[in-house]
Amino acid sequence: MNTIANEVSVPPVFEGPPQHRADQLAAYLAKTAAERDVQGGTPYAQREAVRQSGLLKLLIPLEWGGLGGDWSQLYPIIRTIARADSSIAQVFAFQFLMLASVRLYATEAQWQHLWHETAEKNLWWGNALNPLDNRTIATPQGEHYLFSGQKSFCSGATDSDRLIVSAIEADTGRFLVAAVPTGRAGIKLNNDWDNMGQRQTDSGSAEFTELRVEAHELLMNPGPLSSPFSSLRSLVAQLIFTNIYQGIAEGALAEASQYTRQSSRVWSGSLASSVQQDPYTLLHYGEFWASLEASRVLADHAASLLDAAWAKDLTLGDEERGQVALAVFAAKVNITRSGLDVTSRIFEVAGARATTARLRLDRYWRNLRVYTLHDPVDYKLKDLGDWALNGQYPTASFYS
Amino acid sequence: MNTIANEVSVPPVFEGPPQHRADQLAAYLAKTAAERDVQGGTPYAQREAVRQSGLLKLLIPLEWGGLGGDWSQLYPIIRTIARADSSIAQVFAFQFLMLASVRLYATEAQWQHLWHETAEKNLWWGNALNPLDNRTIATPQGEHYLFSGQKSFCSGATDSDRLIVSAIEADTGRFLVAAVPTGRAGIKLNNDWDNMGQRQTDSGSAEFTELRVEAHELLMNPGPLSSPFSSLRSLVAQLIFTNIYQGIAEGALAEASQYTRQSSRVWSGSLASSVQQDPYTLLHYGEFWASLEASRVLADHAASLLDAAWAKDLTLGDEERGQVALAVFAAKVNITRSGLDVTSRIFEVAGARATTARLRLDRYWRNLRVYTLHDPVDYKLKDLGDWALNGQYPTASFYS
Amino acid sequence: MNTIANEVSVPPVFEGPPQHRADQLAAYLAKTAAERDVQGGTPYAQREAVRQSGLLKLLIPLEWGGLGGDWSQLYPIIRTIARADSSIAQVFAFQFLMLASVRLYATEAQWQHLWHETAEKNLWWGNALNPLDNRTIATPQGEHYLFSGQKSFCSGATDSDRLIVSAIEADTGRFLVAAVPTGRAGIKLNNDWDNMGQRQTDSGSAEFTELRVEAHELLMNPGPLSSPFSSLRSLVAQLIFTNIYQGIAEGALAEASQYTRQSSRVWSGSLASSVQQDPYTLLHYGEFWASLEASRVLADHAASLLDAAWAKDLTLGDEERGQVALAVFAAKVNITRSGLDVTSRIFEVAGARATTARLRLDRYWRNLRVYTLHDPVDYKLKDLGDWALNGQYPTASFYS
Amino acid sequence: MNTIANEVSVPPVFEGPPQHRADQLAAYLAKTAAERDVQGGTPYAQREAVRQSGLLKLLIPLEWGGLGGDWSQLYPIIRTIARADSSIAQVFAFQFLMLASVRLYATEAQWQHLWHETAEKNLWWGNALNPLDNRTIATPQGEHYLFSGQKSFCSGATDSDRLIVSAIEADTGRFLVAAVPTGRAGIKLNNDWDNMGQRQTDSGSAEFTELRVEAHELLMNPGPLSSPFSSLRSLVAQLIFTNIYQGIAEGALAEASQYTRQSSRVWSGSLASSVQQDPYTLLHYGEFWASLEASRVLADHAASLLDAAWAKDLTLGDEERGQVALAVFAAKVNITRSGLDVTSRIFEVAGARATTARLRLDRYWRNLRVYTLHDPVDYKLKDLGDWALNGQYPTASFYS
Repeated sequence: MNTIANEVSVPPVFEGPPQHRADQLAAYLAKTAAERDVQGGTPYAQREAVRQSGLLKLLIPLEWGGLGGDWSQLYPIIRTIARADSSIAQVFAFQFLMLASVRLYATEAQWQHLWHETAEKNLWWGNALNPLDNRTIATPQGEHYLFSGQKSFCSGATDSDRLIVSAIEADTGRFLVAAVPTGRAGIKLNNDWDNMGQRQTDSGSAEFTELRVEAHELLMNPGPLSSPFSSLRSLVAQLIFTNIYQGIAEGALAEASQYTRQSSRVWSGSLASSVQQDPYTLLHYGEFWASLEASRVLADHAASLLDAAWAKDLTLGDEERGQVALAVFAAKVNITRSGLDVTSRIFEVAGARATTARLRLDRYWRNLRVYTLHDPVDYKLKDLGDWALNGQYPTASFYS
Repeated sequence: MNTIANEVSVPPVFEGPPQHRADQLAAYLAKTAAERDVQGGTPYAQREAVRQSGLLKLLIPLEWGGLGGDWSQLYPIIRTIARADSSIAQVFAFQFLMLASVRLYATEAQWQHLWHETAEKNLWWGNALNPLDNRTIATPQGEHYLFSGQKSFCSGATDSDRLIVSAIEADTGRFLVAAVPTGRAGIKLNNDWDNMGQRQTDSGSAEFTELRVEAHELLMNPGPLSSPFSSLRSLVAQLIFTNIYQGIAEGALAEASQYTRQSSRVWSGSLASSVQQDPYTLLHYGEFWASLEASRVLADHAASLLDAAWAKDLTLGDEERGQVALAVFAAKVNITRSGLDVTSRIFEVAGARATTARLRLDRYWRNLRVYTLHDPVDYKLKDLGDWALNGQYPTASFYS
Repeated sequence: MNTIANEVSVPPVFEGPPQHRADQLAAYLAKTAAERDVQGGTPYAQREAVRQSGLLKLLIPLEWGGLGGDWSQLYPIIRTIARADSSIAQVFAFQFLMLASVRLYATEAQWQHLWHETAEKNLWWGNALNPLDNRTIATPQGEHYLFSGQKSFCSGATDSDRLIVSAIEADTGRFLVAAVPTGRAGIKLNNDWDNMGQRQTDSGSAEFTELRVEAHELLMNPGPLSSPFSSLRSLVAQLIFTNIYQGIAEGALAEASQYTRQSSRVWSGSLASSVQQDPYTLLHYGEFWASLEASRVLADHAASLLDAAWAKDLTLGDEERGQVALAVFAAKVNITRSGLDVTSRIFEVAGARATTARLRLDRYWRNLRVYTLHDPVDYKLKDLGDWALNGQYPTASFYS
Repeated sequence: MNTIANEVSVPPVFEGPPQHRADQLAAYLAKTAAERDVQGGTPYAQREAVRQSGLLKLLIPLEWGGLGGDWSQLYPIIRTIARADSSIAQVFAFQFLMLASVRLYATEAQWQHLWHETAEKNLWWGNALNPLDNRTIATPQGEHYLFSGQKSFCSGATDSDRLIVSAIEADTGRFLVAAVPTGRAGIKLNNDWDNMGQRQTDSGSAEFTELRVEAHELLMNPGPLSSPFSSLRSLVAQLIFTNIYQGIAEGALAEASQYTRQSSRVWSGSLASSVQQDPYTLLHYGEFWASLEASRVLADHAASLLDAAWAKDLTLGDEERGQVALAVFAAKVNITRSGLDVTSRIFEVAGARATTARLRLDRYWRNLRVYTLHDPVDYKLKDLGDWALNGQYPTASFYS
């Protein structure tokens, strides 16, 4: 139950261009973000606001009823939302990871149909694809399959309209991917996500019991990892993570900065008369800002390469795909390190009183700490090292 | 209300030498530390166990009914407790900061009386001395004073038997320190400590309303900062912080190590077949251990210098006091950095599943993050720089 | 005397677009860079090759006989040269800092004349402007001035054709800047630069003895720091430094990478059979590459902002100038840290044998260490902190 | 040829306790250390001063004519010398690594004879044992062997009196170690060491041509790695490296500090009026000092454990040996990181003018950079990680 007072739950009337709507959404989410971090669970009211913003259609062409945006427009919007609320940012961003999966794995007829329908019905997609969890088995039944078994880490599945589901095909061991309505019989979503961070992402488990999946719902032609283009999916995902990390760190810096200006005191040994002129305070803020600016520019650079690669469709080559991967990974490893540093060290410039539970300033570090563990940063560094030393591009996989 | 099941609340029957009792106490506290981190508030049952351990008398001479320990014995015990529960470690350690204040500020008759009484009645001392908070005013009434006003950050005052209270003398502005029974009329302790870390330290506020303080209860002869010996108090305090930081980080490393061995999986790109042989995992554990070992050896080195200085009584000179300060500050700045690094990065070797709320592994970082803000580490570095560059010892104050 | 064998001193016949010429020049310089690092002094042969490359005209419009390049084209060329030889890169880049000074400080007639002449005669400009060195005094003599006194750090003055000279006006204390022929009577350039790095930059001292400077040679209308546009000079300079730092670090990484592939051995405890697959080696190369990629993208981002600001001429506002400054400083502080890290740690992936004096692999660190001290990076961080905390842009000066 | 002026080459008349003699020696070496860093080669005059100091006998019992010191006394002396001249420190320290090899590998009769002789004749031992270089082959000739082949990295062999030589036994592949006079026929020492650092360590190559080695000169009973006690040799060596690293970094800090006090200027943006009170300068000096103090205390701690282990002789167990290894490695990895940081960053507090070639302040970084590559620090961290994660002690080898 959402116990937050109603008055703060009234979402804005969204208007203007996408980035403006994102700003409005972020301002709305920020009002209750600290409070909802305590609660956890599904933020129904806030999810409804996301739906009302129209931003779920961002990547869909204008002529199909979408907003006609590209990746370079989307990622800063994800970041904007993450500055205020990184849980909402994650489930919002997964909308586009799911739409990208549809686009990259399915036939033209399939993906165009699903994108049209998404725009038309303002659908929100949730995730039940997990390449490391092989417990859900797909058993062929002539023209259709029955999916049965469990799945962990199904971010955004609760309160979604459609799901991307993966399963292992019995006998062949093939990795199958399908798009199905979330409400279909045989799908049970457990509200069992209780974590130290990203607390409203509903990244809990799902259970499938003879879930019927039709042949035309399978996204296997050309299917995952079938081409450099198809394998852009993992780069789309990694750049989502990257931008959410970036947004979390920027949000932390913004809130710390406001706190310092309004509430912090200069230490008695300082040569400055106010904390705003204190040499150490300024030095640390400079370190924070410089490192986050590096990550931000890297993320934007990667998005522009991704847009170019995306436009190539199946003509995308290994080298061009590899260049996108390098750019994405460089952004990811930089923000992982700088973001953790900033979200931990903001307290040193805000001071001891900023640790009061009321502010929940620790949520930035907790959210970032949790989400940066999605896959090990060491292996991204290793991939970049393979490029620097051996001139090898990262091998395409669900994580790279 | 303490809702933790009774069976885990039964404390051990303490026996053996002090370090062994500390081990028993830590094992008992560890059972409920994660759960009590959720609750916050005053851990009455656990505080009772501390009383039963006998360790509150550690520094008091054997012939007075104490355990006859010295600082080199006490600090590792504080660390041991902090590995399991850094809130209890703080209020336990403050017992000795208060006893040190009595010893350093009072006449021989006063401190010997109070130390005897502490041993005899197994008293626990709480803190209401705060050099940065001048809101409590002491008004002379002939032979006694009336203390009135507020005080913040009174760690361990709740459930204590005696309090060290500071106040500003009306008219003179003199900083007064007194020792009084916690239960005396005119003392109100507010249970208003709600913080992101160190959640069971009861570091909330106090209110004094015409609290009567007798002349013989003032600890002003020789009083605070009256000599190099007297000003050892701040070094005792800083080395308490240091050892609690050390204990927190060691506790984090120990729990992460156990989790990794039992639950973590090796990533698919590793050349090793198990996480226990994984090169990156071992590298990071090596980094953690090496940096904590440095801090540990520094802390022990500082304690041995403190013991030597303590033995000098009023013959202690500025230089000897300065050498203790340098040793303490070196230990403090090292563990501040390495501890924050370790408590944040343990997740990278434990993996994403270790972020489940059930484990509350984030409490190590939260506890350390909060407590390391006691006073700015930048100014400790500046003091050390003044030594390295200019050969100047730190100027004695309540913080250095 | 240049004792390097003649065969390696034959410069290429430069052709193709500017970046291609820069590649040719860098390849030529690389052949003798290690050897010339031992020698120090003025690299006449290599300077002659720079002249022949045509690149000294890069920024001059095509219609005036230049190559018509902009800052976004120039900076990567500076980087290219710095990868091979950061001394030559510095004196090459100073050509453009001097041309920028002319452009920003002088009247339209003056700067267009000097730019035309530079293209026509393929002139190379050297530096004798030093805002921190006030020893050269300009005494008015009716229509002209006499400059007398000393000046330190006159990079690239030796073997140059024109000099930018600064002096303090007697009586008024005004900071004067003039453009004069290097060969004019009254100028003595001392070959007294002997440093641990940047050894062939001829950054020695100059002495002026009644150097006659005509009124029309003064670049004082509008003069230095007269407007946001005029004060772009220090950002041009800071971004030159930044790109040279970047080039040095990239050169170090490239040479280390080649050495590792060809000569390094895997340590006996590795799980890999070759150093090219060694997990630690790859991790470190990944760290190096990721951090340098961040700096590179920041430098390019700053260059594009500078181009836009440059195009605004005197309409450039404080805010736009401020945004360029933030971008330049962010790039500078990032490469300062990452570059020093990379140039020091390359030895850890190349191994002990890479320290042989023959390779002089330490020159990368020495060159970077020296040049990054131009002005303190702490104050760049402080400026960025002032932005992050207080929303203040850096105050324009000769250093920011 | 040593071209340094004679007056600075007159060594002191050594007197007093060992540490005092070391101070005298260091002061003497410091006068010419920068100059000799340029020259490289063998510092005959300085080596003679070492001989005169009597310190080559430090570890030998008083009753045999030695100074009766232990490891805890020796290592600070090595550090003292390294602060002034890390090349001399290395070849001085190798005296004791060689004597330790004799002690640990030989029979009681052998080592006591050689130690007696060393004291009596004031012998200096050089190194020709290299576990990674298998090119020297020992061919049995009845009662004696003939050693033939090459050997790299023979530190201190030039100008030595005795050599420890290793060879691979033909047929068996056994690793043999022998002690022979340096002047014996069949030994050729090449003056081919030319490196970017540690330039006067004579760590060049040797060639053996049918070098006759008698059976009684073999140190094979019990021989290398034959017991935990025997394998203390590598810990003795690693702790030598560690203390030389420490000394280098301390020397750098001391020289930078003196330079800053005497010659550096405060930057114009500082709130302080002198560099000695500048907040950033003090912060950095504090960081340097605090990190070096950590390494110093670790090194001393390791030495005290080594002394205890050394006293156990063949009763030394794996666990006790393992604890020494952990302490030594912790010290080594800490000083490797902090020392490289300090020797590079001292320039940031000394300023640009401190880079003049005359001072050769870069030699600290060059010396440390070279020597810290002896064996990869990653593998020391891995060993420590194996302890932290798996409770495994480092496996004894020539490097651990």
